[in-house]
Amino acid sequence: MRESDLLRRVYAANALLPSDVLVPPGDDMAAIRLGDRTLLAAVDQVIEGRHVMIDEDPALVGRKAVARNVSDVAAMAARPVATLASVVLPKRYGEGRALQLFEGLRSSADVFRAPLIGGDTAIHEDANAPLVVSVTILAAPAWPGARILTRRGSQPGDGLYVTGRLGGSLEHGGGGRHLTFTPRIEEAVALLELLGDRLHAMIDVSDGAGRDAARLAGERLGAIQMRIDAARVPTHDRLPWQRGLADGEDYELLFTASGGVPDSIRGTGVTRIGSVVAREDPAAPAVVALDGPHTVDASDLGWEHST
Amino acid sequence: MRESDLLRRVYAANALLPSDVLVPPGDDMAAIRLGDRTLLAAVDQVIEGRHVMIDEDPALVGRKAVARNVSDVAAMAARPVATLASVVLPKRYGEGRALQLFEGLRSSADVFRAPLIGGDTAIHEDANAPLVVSVTILAAPAWPGARILTRRGSQPGDGLYVTGRLGGSLEHGGGGRHLTFTPRIEEAVALLELLGDRLHAMIDVSDGAGRDAARLAGERLGAIQMRIDAARVPTHDRLPWQRGLADGEDYELLFTASGGVPDSIRGTGVTRIGSVVAREDPAAPAVVALDGPHTVDASDLGWEHST
Repeated sequence: MRESDLLRRVYAANALLPSDVLVPPGDDMAAIRLGDRTLLAAVDQVIEGRHVMIDEDPALVGRKAVARNVSDVAAMAARPVATLASVVLPKRYGEGRALQLFEGLRSSADVFRAPLIGGDTAIHEDANAPLVVSVTILAAPAWPGARILTRRGSQPGDGLYVTGRLGGSLEHGGGGRHLTFTPRIEEAVALLELLGDRLHAMIDVSDGAGRDAARLAGERLGAIQMRIDAARVPTHDRLPWQRGLADGEDYELLFTASGGVPDSIRGTGVTRIGSVVAREDPAAPAVVALDGPHTVDASDLGWEHST
Repeated sequence: MRESDLLRRVYAANALLPSDVLVPPGDDMAAIRLGDRTLLAAVDQVIEGRHVMIDEDPALVGRKAVARNVSDVAAMAARPVATLASVVLPKRYGEGRALQLFEGLRSSADVFRAPLIGGDTAIHEDANAPLVVSVTILAAPAWPGARILTRRGSQPGDGLYVTGRLGGSLEHGGGGRHLTFTPRIEEAVALLELLGDRLHAMIDVSDGAGRDAARLAGERLGAIQMRIDAARVPTHDRLPWQRGLADGEDYELLFTASGGVPDSIRGTGVTRIGSVVAREDPAAPAVVALDGPHTVDASDLGWEHST
């Protein structure tokens, strides 16, 4: 067999070439090239005792499992296409609650325009095994040929912006926002339409805006620093700025852009909370909050991901 | 707003129309239309105590989680594109074993040409919580424009065929085939190339060939019956035919075709184990095994899926 034939056979058998991975793992979603299309994909799980409590309304647990993934789609300024879910039910969970959970998954997937196309369910024999709901979401660019936004691309001089308000999402007094939030798909797509190439990088606030801003800054390896004006951090219920940056589970958009940005998009407030500056000293924090005379390292405000 | 504008906006926001779902949930994989491409997707999970034992080699657990999904791709006569994995680690699992598990996932995904493009890991606080490994697999038709095979389409007069041998996969003496099998991608694609439209329906044998044949027959609602000649069921280690139809975890291809079928494909044996006949009486079993003078209902030979 000639080498060219061999290569052709190898490539024919290999549906995905390395060059077809447009965004590798490590962003809110991975992106691959499929023919002339771009496909985005991500997986995220909700675990009882960690992300939800066992006495939570099962329909809201299903909704949250889908909505968190849709929020990752928003962070890429993309649109959802479809979802798949795998569930491990503890034996004590019961059929009624299981059906409510599935209906929560199905109906919220429909509402968020990401119909549930696949699933796998197992019931664990161990009565104390935790409920695990894993959702994979598939997405596509906002329109044919549209850019997808990643965490990379912020430039010194950019503004740092956040949609909505932060903090208190997990509090009982907070209205259970972590269970009922609407992912910012429409806002993200409208920002991309409006700002175009001036929109530089984006992430959704899941682990805390401090930690998530550090991800936009490239964490310890980055050449930029995020400088947050503490007084500008928009919080729910007059919470202090530290709570706004640390609480997490906000599912708001945190993004950087050059030039002007409107103070609301699709009816949702947009606040400039800081600026991107060059990080001359690699040992400097990725994120600082300026609170009057104090400069506070805000890179670690939020939840450490277990991965 | 005019109705045409309204419809355009609704459709623009809705990345997936109902007509874009080519194969709905309920087959080995779902299939959707993405532009001019067909994308297949499925999710499947491996749970400690159910699919694997806690003392199993973690790298083989990772391999099995990927390989089971690749076997679903083979059942559609498609080719893998990419995988995503979510893992819940019990606290006692330990970092060394976790790294072996991830390496098993990553390397087998590469070997099966379905690179791991996304993941989510959590460590559960409960020391007794089971290990859960959920893998989503994405796939594409075997070549541009190729048919994808589903469980539907068998016709009276077809032969019922199986690749390889069945039974004993989970036995210690069986060499741990359930952990080391090679999914039948190449065989499935070669069958599609060779038989074309004469290849009617296909499934991979995961829950037991009896139960899986019932799925090809449409179970209780179908208009056809699978008649298996017990003496022809190819088993490992001279196991009786009942074990061949009931054991499961074989990950061989079970398919129906009209006309002639070769007795081997890509070096793997192919055996005609029975025929498809019309099911006149809807109360008749979906699958019968003819064992000398006896006719046995074989529809329930195998494992009941928990879904």
